[in-house]
Amino acid sequence: MNLRTPGPTPLPEPVRQALARDMVNHRGPEFAALMRETVQILKELFRTQHDLLILTGSGTGGLEAAAVNMLSPGDKVLAVSIGYFGDRFARIAEAFGAQVRRLSFPWGQAADPEQVRAALAEDPDLGVVLVTHNDTSTGVTNDLEALTRVVKGAGRLLLVDAVSSIGSVPLETDAWGCDVVITGSQKSWMTPPGLALVSVSPAAWEAHRRARTPRFYWDFTAHAKQVERGSTPWTPAVSAIYGLNVAVKLMQAEGLEAIFARHRRVADYARGRLRELGLRLLADERHASNTVTAFFAPEGVDQKRVLRRLREERDVVLAGGQGHLEATLMRIGHMGYVDVPAVKAALDALADVLAQERAAAPAVR
Amino acid sequence: MNLRTPGPTPLPEPVRQALARDMVNHRGPEFAALMRETVQILKELFRTQHDLLILTGSGTGGLEAAAVNMLSPGDKVLAVSIGYFGDRFARIAEAFGAQVRRLSFPWGQAADPEQVRAALAEDPDLGVVLVTHNDTSTGVTNDLEALTRVVKGAGRLLLVDAVSSIGSVPLETDAWGCDVVITGSQKSWMTPPGLALVSVSPAAWEAHRRARTPRFYWDFTAHAKQVERGSTPWTPAVSAIYGLNVAVKLMQAEGLEAIFARHRRVADYARGRLRELGLRLLADERHASNTVTAFFAPEGVDQKRVLRRLREERDVVLAGGQGHLEATLMRIGHMGYVDVPAVKAALDALADVLAQERAAAPAVR
Repeated sequence: MNLRTPGPTPLPEPVRQALARDMVNHRGPEFAALMRETVQILKELFRTQHDLLILTGSGTGGLEAAAVNMLSPGDKVLAVSIGYFGDRFARIAEAFGAQVRRLSFPWGQAADPEQVRAALAEDPDLGVVLVTHNDTSTGVTNDLEALTRVVKGAGRLLLVDAVSSIGSVPLETDAWGCDVVITGSQKSWMTPPGLALVSVSPAAWEAHRRARTPRFYWDFTAHAKQVERGSTPWTPAVSAIYGLNVAVKLMQAEGLEAIFARHRRVADYARGRLRELGLRLLADERHASNTVTAFFAPEGVDQKRVLRRLREERDVVLAGGQGHLEATLMRIGHMGYVDVPAVKAALDALADVLAQERAAAPAVR
Repeated sequence: MNLRTPGPTPLPEPVRQALARDMVNHRGPEFAALMRETVQILKELFRTQHDLLILTGSGTGGLEAAAVNMLSPGDKVLAVSIGYFGDRFARIAEAFGAQVRRLSFPWGQAADPEQVRAALAEDPDLGVVLVTHNDTSTGVTNDLEALTRVVKGAGRLLLVDAVSSIGSVPLETDAWGCDVVITGSQKSWMTPPGLALVSVSPAAWEAHRRARTPRFYWDFTAHAKQVERGSTPWTPAVSAIYGLNVAVKLMQAEGLEAIFARHRRVADYARGRLRELGLRLLADERHASNTVTAFFAPEGVDQKRVLRRLREERDVVLAGGQGHLEATLMRIGHMGYVDVPAVKAALDALADVLAQERAAAPAVR
């Protein structure tokens, strides 16, 4: 199967082999060594010297963890949203009692740092800012560096949903001053879903100590205590950590710059090819994502049918849209374990199916 | 390695092979069929006709999920504790603002249903009762059927931590009237950790709709909506579900009665052999667990050293104690993928090491 959704993403063979290992004692020395090594390499890949926690849960669990560890009920929060996942982060903060001011940009656009600056200047009580680095619903990557300058320049705490960005595109956790950065194992990390990876800055630890939202399972203090022992407070997803350990070593061997270049190359190829096919891309091209590309099904062509035919006849799996674009948008993931030939094969199949569907469709003018 | 901790437990070969499968789209038809089949078999094994949710998280995440879905801040809760995990369930409820009355029994003893009855009669506002079916810290299994008669007879809601019981020892979810039953994939289920499995009764759904504790990731309504579609609200631990699907089919093929008989046989063997070795068992023998046995290191023998020698010289992994018995207790798990020869091999090794340690130790009188 040529799986080209924006997560889960395909697994390299050595990762799959690691997943098949039998269990070990998660409180024993062998697992502790594996955890310590994995955390150390993750810190390099996150570009952070600070704490890195491995939580057992989905990416959404990681977002919830950030919210409950950093916020108190009633806290005023600015949620910068450029799509479905920006909205989700805002909903999570609201679910735990934060007063969320939404600053939403049209789907396909990146956040405008100047509007963020104005919103923060207008309300000094907006102590925390939520930003999605890359929204897979639209295939847009925010200029996170510019946003961090605005947010940290205004002295606010910055929580970054980097679920589908970090590890594939540049994110300088420490140099840019990101306080909490959250990602999921099934994205850039070439590992099955089930782990949320979270970095925590010193300022985030201060906020954590003040934060009064009730928490237990996600509590950062409980996790940080165990990191030193190469452990976790609750039984972790041992197999996923076997896989992650192998995957981060593969990433370390390739090198971050080479990984970023590969993602640029694949994304350039995907966008160029989709345009050649006459398809309209959703993302503002100045902010087009290097991990996922969203494009509209051609007028008169049934998106659901195209996705089904690709899957059933060509063994190629793309994703549909989300939210209000569920039925019209199509998305191709190109993050993690990906190269140009894999994406070319998927788009060759798409080209064939679209040609057939267009030929069969009544002419639309 | 002969891994004999009370979880994670060893994986059958077909489960390990399933773990090595590449990813699929978790929103696609293939995964939906796998989820529906897994949930259906789990319902049989849980002995329930009601809802069964698969959450991505540790067993402790499942306990938190039960608490936040069933309780409101200020709710009065009776926490029946017979050990470390009973205390944990109480702490979780407290963390989310419940007023917890603890009814604790000495480690090694089961809960006395009459004391539970008296506590509930004394305070009609104790609307929810937390019970650990089997506490791995002590190797004691509560008489859950008797406790359900008391709790349901008094019209209270019953949340059962069955993390290390269900699937290995009898638990009649519907017939006994358990409202929420929680377990973890790494125990009886012969699957890696990372999934919490939770049943929800109609009375639990009513309580859920009234419950005001803030929640997002664990929200039962969000999960139940997706179960019908063979999906989950957030990206699930796909590989663990591949493994669970194979494991529950193995369990279905063996049959619940045969599984229970095997666990009785292995536990009887373990207890008999440990007594032969002159070791003192912690559990009241009327309530000794069929999934884990806790015993004291002989006087004058260094428990840590025995555990290390077993691991390093014999490739046998037992567990130490928890809480106040951390340094004196030893525990052997015999749940899930286990038979008498595996436990015999572990106890043969223990016998050898203990004989050497006793010979070397200064005589203790």
